[in-house]
Amino acid sequence: MRAGFAGVLMCGVALPPATLTGMAHDLDDYCTAHQPRFVEELIELLRIPSISADPAHAADVRRSAEHLAARAREAGLTGVEVVETDGHPAVYGERMVSESLPTVLVYGHHDVQPVDPLDAWVSPPFSPEVRDGRLYARGAVDDKGQVYMHLKAVEAHLRTRGELPVNVRMLIEGEEEVGSAHFESLVSTLADRLVADVAVISDTGIFARGVPSLTVGLRGLTGVEVEVRGPSLDLHSGVFGGAVQNPVEALARMLASLKDPESGRVLVPGFYDDVVEPTETERAGYASLPFSEEGFRRDAGGIPETVGEEGWTVLERRWVRPTLEINGIWGGYQGPGSKTIIPAHAGAKISCRLVPAQRPALIAEAVATALRAATPRGVVAEVTVKHGGNPVVTPADHPAVTAASRAMGAVFGKEPVIIREGGSIPPVEVFQRVLGIQSVLVGVGLPDDHIHAPNEKFDMDHYAMGVRVLARLWDEIAEEMG
Amino acid sequence: MRAGFAGVLMCGVALPPATLTGMAHDLDDYCTAHQPRFVEELIELLRIPSISADPAHAADVRRSAEHLAARAREAGLTGVEVVETDGHPAVYGERMVSESLPTVLVYGHHDVQPVDPLDAWVSPPFSPEVRDGRLYARGAVDDKGQVYMHLKAVEAHLRTRGELPVNVRMLIEGEEEVGSAHFESLVSTLADRLVADVAVISDTGIFARGVPSLTVGLRGLTGVEVEVRGPSLDLHSGVFGGAVQNPVEALARMLASLKDPESGRVLVPGFYDDVVEPTETERAGYASLPFSEEGFRRDAGGIPETVGEEGWTVLERRWVRPTLEINGIWGGYQGPGSKTIIPAHAGAKISCRLVPAQRPALIAEAVATALRAATPRGVVAEVTVKHGGNPVVTPADHPAVTAASRAMGAVFGKEPVIIREGGSIPPVEVFQRVLGIQSVLVGVGLPDDHIHAPNEKFDMDHYAMGVRVLARLWDEIAEEMG
Repeated sequence: MRAGFAGVLMCGVALPPATLTGMAHDLDDYCTAHQPRFVEELIELLRIPSISADPAHAADVRRSAEHLAARAREAGLTGVEVVETDGHPAVYGERMVSESLPTVLVYGHHDVQPVDPLDAWVSPPFSPEVRDGRLYARGAVDDKGQVYMHLKAVEAHLRTRGELPVNVRMLIEGEEEVGSAHFESLVSTLADRLVADVAVISDTGIFARGVPSLTVGLRGLTGVEVEVRGPSLDLHSGVFGGAVQNPVEALARMLASLKDPESGRVLVPGFYDDVVEPTETERAGYASLPFSEEGFRRDAGGIPETVGEEGWTVLERRWVRPTLEINGIWGGYQGPGSKTIIPAHAGAKISCRLVPAQRPALIAEAVATALRAATPRGVVAEVTVKHGGNPVVTPADHPAVTAASRAMGAVFGKEPVIIREGGSIPPVEVFQRVLGIQSVLVGVGLPDDHIHAPNEKFDMDHYAMGVRVLARLWDEIAEEMG
Repeated sequence: MRAGFAGVLMCGVALPPATLTGMAHDLDDYCTAHQPRFVEELIELLRIPSISADPAHAADVRRSAEHLAARAREAGLTGVEVVETDGHPAVYGERMVSESLPTVLVYGHHDVQPVDPLDAWVSPPFSPEVRDGRLYARGAVDDKGQVYMHLKAVEAHLRTRGELPVNVRMLIEGEEEVGSAHFESLVSTLADRLVADVAVISDTGIFARGVPSLTVGLRGLTGVEVEVRGPSLDLHSGVFGGAVQNPVEALARMLASLKDPESGRVLVPGFYDDVVEPTETERAGYASLPFSEEGFRRDAGGIPETVGEEGWTVLERRWVRPTLEINGIWGGYQGPGSKTIIPAHAGAKISCRLVPAQRPALIAEAVATALRAATPRGVVAEVTVKHGGNPVVTPADHPAVTAASRAMGAVFGKEPVIIREGGSIPPVEVFQRVLGIQSVLVGVGLPDDHIHAPNEKFDMDHYAMGVRVLARLWDEIAEEMG
């Protein structure tokens, strides 16, 4: 089926990108008129407990895929298929209008997080309930609600105008909440069905209510593990102490040498060589955001104060500056009481978050070299370099960013701030590496949506705005990339 | 029984300390004549597998105590008793000659180490065998052989002259190889039977064959545990990394700050304030010892090189200089693979070996203060001070040291070097703290005796010399302390 399917385009007549910014009243009107049904339909999807982490719910994840596939066909997608993986199934569907139109790849996921602690939910997680304009259910915003926005945006175009102004391909994963173990293999398998000009991912939120934002960059990742070895066995600290290098002390010294405690800068030679600094426009955008230091400290587990690289704000330190973190350390005796030894060895795991255009392999090697150079006399250090992931950034002037910015600005009544995220979203990196395409993250969740927690919710006005943003997005992409 | 026993002295006639250095030919002759029997008797004791660590051998440890008690009575000790503890039994015996004579408390132990790996033994560990003048058996030198030297030294005096020139009390423990858990309680219980002027402990060795030595000092111990806390939970290193102090990094920096990597000196303010430096005579004695750096590195688990405080030799760094060691460290993820977190907390155990006249509580508090002062912004540190032990040193001019030095010098034909040990021997600290007496360590083992290892042995010429040293020691102590 795969070979025959490759390169096949829909036979529908390609429409010109007739709708410009602010001219999508037809779509808006349709969405407004049908919004109550959009909510009812989403509620049906949310009743399926597609918890990918729980083997007991494997059949539910499949049912969720089948349900979504049926709704995708109803919305007007073609070639819809529940795609098997070595884990939970994904859903693929497309509407290929014309070779002359830009092609967008939409990504989302239909599996959901577990629901513990169940008794903390006001209404049961799989009995969706609307209270005060918010729909409470597991998966409401992460990510079933945002996937459903895409289906309804396609429907709005087809019911209003008869066709889409772009080609759309959708890949809805079933294992995002359990680490996307089979996603790269899925993408490779479907590669000829995933040929696209840009990816749109709706699995994130905006910065804050009333502060629309578009995420265009994610940090990359690399890491090393270091093992410091001294004596071949733990030594008696009385008999030997004073004349033998202590591997834990050596490791502490090596780790402390990697960063300047005053400036917060990483001291690994070459670490910042390839860093592309954000533009003044980007920085001005970040500065315009209503950031609460107190709120951040609370979100960060109640830390007493923030720290970081001097010359950069807290947001910048997390979004556009690279980091070096010790993720774990061990050595010697960790049990109750005392054991007066010079430990035979000690080790640590280190990871770095990377920004464009740092290269994971080069940075890992630079960290390894710095650790080796900082190794004190009397011990030996072995550094293992780990697999990494590239940082990704879609340039702020990329036509898809411009398009998404206009679509969001028109619906929210306010131009979105172009931001980045500090973490990685694996599909973005996979799409870039395997398919060679960039991504724009167009999500409309809110920071208080309680994703991964009890009482997950989706504000229904944001759901409605999300459908309209995505419907307009296809017009804008047709305009910008056509 | 205890109350009636207290203060009772033997009714035998007190002899004057008639034997001066070099005049103990009668004792030497007796020992030489009976040495073959001394070996036969020791072999009988060594057949008892008194492994205190193995519950299956509990009855053997008791049998060992009973066997030893019987031999102590035969040797001429009185009031001999197998003393119960909450663990394995000890043996007490005494020969109280006269209130006018100095009283010596002898300490040793009759329990032995486990024997694994059994197949590494040339002859079975509890089937003692003499090969090339060495007696191979578990416990041969640690410590049954050296305890037996004491019984035979008493016998030599009584059979040769009818009485001892000093009062002797002996306490032979049954739990030394399992941490002496009940020893302090045993000493407290027996306190009125343990009143003495000095303790003699024969559970050590000399520096090297042909290099007799007397140990007069042991380092003390103190410690702290530090816990560094940041966020209340592990944080995502992508979302938060760059703006949050990492507790592991903070801890590494705090630990690294405690010692100067160049000079090897501890940087804790006040750390060296009370340190009493060894005399030039002591240092000259240490310098005269045939120390092999290569041999030490091998013994220290094959370390590539020694390190330590500048201005001091390897022996001095271990014997007369204080240390600060990290015994254990932990924090964050220690498992296989990666977990990209900023750990919520991290901790470490630190211990210091102390020399006179450092005080454990003061040093622990100084280390705690230094750690608190070095705590970076953004985390909090909690330091717990641990129980410590005093360093002990019997002055080189103490009459018991002079006496032991003469006894050993006469037998070995060479004046012993007065040395120290880097570790602690709990009975020494307990005797000082609970009984208020100092100790001299008169042992004749050799570094290659394989204690705690397969093929433990005792060189039979050292066993013979040991009996003679201890026999002479009572003469010398009577002379010096009478």
